[in-house]
Amino acid sequence: MTTRTTPLLSDLRAALGDAYVLTGEAMAPYRIDWMGDTRPEPLAVLRPADTAQVSDILQCASRHATPVVPISGNTGLTHGTDAGGALLLSLDRLNTIREIRPDARVAVVEAGVILAHLHEAADAHDLIFPLTFGARGSAMIGGALSTNAGGSNVVRYGSTRGLCLGIEAVLADGRVLDLMSAVHKDNSGYDLRDLLIGAEGTLGIITAAVLKLAPKPRAYVSAMAACPSIGAALKLLHRLQAETANSVEAFELMPGNYIDAHLTRHPDARAPFEERHDVNIFLELGALSARDATPDTTGAVPMATHLETVLADMLEAGDILDATVAQNAAQRSEMWARREAAAELTRLHSPVVDNDIAVPLDRMADLISGIETATSAVDPGIPFLHVAHLGDGNLHFSGWPSTDDPDTHAAIVRAVEDVAISLGGSFSAEHGVGLSKRPAMARHKNPVALDVMRSIKAALDPQGILNPGKVLPPKSE
Amino acid sequence: MTTRTTPLLSDLRAALGDAYVLTGEAMAPYRIDWMGDTRPEPLAVLRPADTAQVSDILQCASRHATPVVPISGNTGLTHGTDAGGALLLSLDRLNTIREIRPDARVAVVEAGVILAHLHEAADAHDLIFPLTFGARGSAMIGGALSTNAGGSNVVRYGSTRGLCLGIEAVLADGRVLDLMSAVHKDNSGYDLRDLLIGAEGTLGIITAAVLKLAPKPRAYVSAMAACPSIGAALKLLHRLQAETANSVEAFELMPGNYIDAHLTRHPDARAPFEERHDVNIFLELGALSARDATPDTTGAVPMATHLETVLADMLEAGDILDATVAQNAAQRSEMWARREAAAELTRLHSPVVDNDIAVPLDRMADLISGIETATSAVDPGIPFLHVAHLGDGNLHFSGWPSTDDPDTHAAIVRAVEDVAISLGGSFSAEHGVGLSKRPAMARHKNPVALDVMRSIKAALDPQGILNPGKVLPPKSE
Repeated sequence: MTTRTTPLLSDLRAALGDAYVLTGEAMAPYRIDWMGDTRPEPLAVLRPADTAQVSDILQCASRHATPVVPISGNTGLTHGTDAGGALLLSLDRLNTIREIRPDARVAVVEAGVILAHLHEAADAHDLIFPLTFGARGSAMIGGALSTNAGGSNVVRYGSTRGLCLGIEAVLADGRVLDLMSAVHKDNSGYDLRDLLIGAEGTLGIITAAVLKLAPKPRAYVSAMAACPSIGAALKLLHRLQAETANSVEAFELMPGNYIDAHLTRHPDARAPFEERHDVNIFLELGALSARDATPDTTGAVPMATHLETVLADMLEAGDILDATVAQNAAQRSEMWARREAAAELTRLHSPVVDNDIAVPLDRMADLISGIETATSAVDPGIPFLHVAHLGDGNLHFSGWPSTDDPDTHAAIVRAVEDVAISLGGSFSAEHGVGLSKRPAMARHKNPVALDVMRSIKAALDPQGILNPGKVLPPKSE
Repeated sequence: MTTRTTPLLSDLRAALGDAYVLTGEAMAPYRIDWMGDTRPEPLAVLRPADTAQVSDILQCASRHATPVVPISGNTGLTHGTDAGGALLLSLDRLNTIREIRPDARVAVVEAGVILAHLHEAADAHDLIFPLTFGARGSAMIGGALSTNAGGSNVVRYGSTRGLCLGIEAVLADGRVLDLMSAVHKDNSGYDLRDLLIGAEGTLGIITAAVLKLAPKPRAYVSAMAACPSIGAALKLLHRLQAETANSVEAFELMPGNYIDAHLTRHPDARAPFEERHDVNIFLELGALSARDATPDTTGAVPMATHLETVLADMLEAGDILDATVAQNAAQRSEMWARREAAAELTRLHSPVVDNDIAVPLDRMADLISGIETATSAVDPGIPFLHVAHLGDGNLHFSGWPSTDDPDTHAAIVRAVEDVAISLGGSFSAEHGVGLSKRPAMARHKNPVALDVMRSIKAALDPQGILNPGKVLPPKSE
């Protein structure tokens, strides 16, 4: 094990205690990312106990002009926590759920709280913290806020930003910005909360938050539907929203080749339908009201009965080709497992390139056809897999290029981004920018917006020590 | 009529045409505010035709280092558009609804569109733009965005910020910041949209926006309920949210003396209940689903029947003392009229002082009792009237001091603010800061937050020409 003694590390050991300043091999667990890759070596890994120690670290780093990179659950997908030569500041010890206030419908949590732990704590009060995604057992609140994470039920509850009332953050110079409000309406100056959320630790390090809780659905009604087109699927979405008081919690698109890949990988799995279809939708309704959720003598809940009526009606009209409603928890789990296999299925082949893009809802069909044309122009016949949060207009593309050539990989990524941008979309929907989408920022972000972002960065972090190199491309890029 | 000819005004007349550069008496209509007061005299009133002309004005103003104050519907309540000696830039000619895209559930509008006009345009597509408040016939989108306006159904749909997907704004130097996205998930760098929303024109002038539309409720179910306490009223709110899939669109508190004042002012009006009660709630549910809204043979809709069940149940448990459900449109209008009389009732006496404050939901009872004690300590026995968006924790206090002494008035305002702050609340909920709440910003806003706001202001508007003096208190204040 390497040990280093520099004035900086001595200061940090004095502030945190030796046990919480890791160097050498001890840093290994913090360097392995969600994809299993080992990332560049930090100067040290720091594990502060509380906000005051985070402030100590930033004061120390400011004095020594040393970069600091925050990390929490380490489940990011854009290399946003790469910390070569920097101090990697882990928030994992700030893991207290300080308070659940059921009557105010809020939770007060620290940045190192694991998402699944907050789910459990809210559940004990018959409430939910709605944010959820595959990595919920590892992902922490700090990272979710810093990347404005999305997930599977944004269509009903919004992204992380929409679920947060207040934050506490430590600035580059160590000052603590206390915006820990539990108030729903607060127009007292600039919206610094939303500026720090999604800034990926480049403007400040979020240490705590006040989060909104929501009533827990009393029942879930889950279904698979095959549609003749994306347009028909959107018709189903809009009709369900209008007829169930916006109770759609998930509306996920799995194209035909996604289903094929799932069945190939899991030969014991059942196909969703007898025939193969191109547009397969997994949808889930959350029945919040007793009237929607109280089972009748057959065990069906009224919302399920209503869904079956809508599906039958649209089947008759030709807007649905086949449909099946989950009859029990096992069938619901089977539907979720098919959707949550995405991370596994997209990594079946190598090399892989991927995109996390979004378009307005009424442009999704054009996005899908456009991507096929554009990627084939770069790498003819390139196989790919889509999976989409269709309710949010958010598509995840994974392609398997015919070559290892990094220029071709980059050209494929760019081709997909170009299609999204040409349809009024975004090259970055829910995973953030980090390092990997910085080139896209340079190519596609409104140059005035980039310039304003750089001005804000310079104003808040004049030495550039907070997660340097992330989010904002250099002017020359 | 005064005419002035300065190099600045010559430049502006060349850019906009003589007819759209107003001086002297022609400015009068733009100087009278929503309360009927005439505000300080601008250098000129400018009426640009489009974003390009707004950019021309800002370039010109930058060259001449002359302040620019944006104004749209002029219905603000905090003197946020005072423009003494400045260029008052009216957005009233940027009044085009560019596009309604029903399948994407968005409207693309210019800043000068009147809120009520957008309501009508959305209605034609069986959709709503949910933001609404008393001044909807005059207020414009630009002002609603710049103040992050609230209103009567924030409890269901959120404030203006939550209803906006994209904006276009002109910066201090005339550059156009194009963030006109119709995408629901977009994590491409810092959240400049939400920074400009609510900044009251001090960081840029919003010229257009992409706004979210929502399905139109098929029926409204409206009721009055008298409760023994605020706590019991919150129990009713939470139960209705949980049992109607968050269908509560309004949940408004009118204390006993508010009802008294209304009956005194409108002797022909009916009292809501036979007996007088201290805690009177007006609530409205929006039935989005056909199942909730399709009338049965008696003309009642299922949501109304369910509401009646809840009310009867809570009446039995002693959490409700009396209740009445509107049986027709006339009774619903009567309930709304009682609530919307607030602006009139609070202006019945003079002088008047008021506050727009918010606390976490579970602190509202303490807020109300605390205000009575705190204001009476300043001006013993001061009469006052509350009305509250209880569902948002937002209370409007109006008091009638015994004296004209401005120091006493300021002391009353401060006393109310202090109570809100001591309960974790905000001194500014939905009306913005403008000039009138600047002292409260100086007293109560986290000093680190104020400093960060000043840094951002300096970075984006180094000459300080955008709505100077608003929102941010000087360092010495």
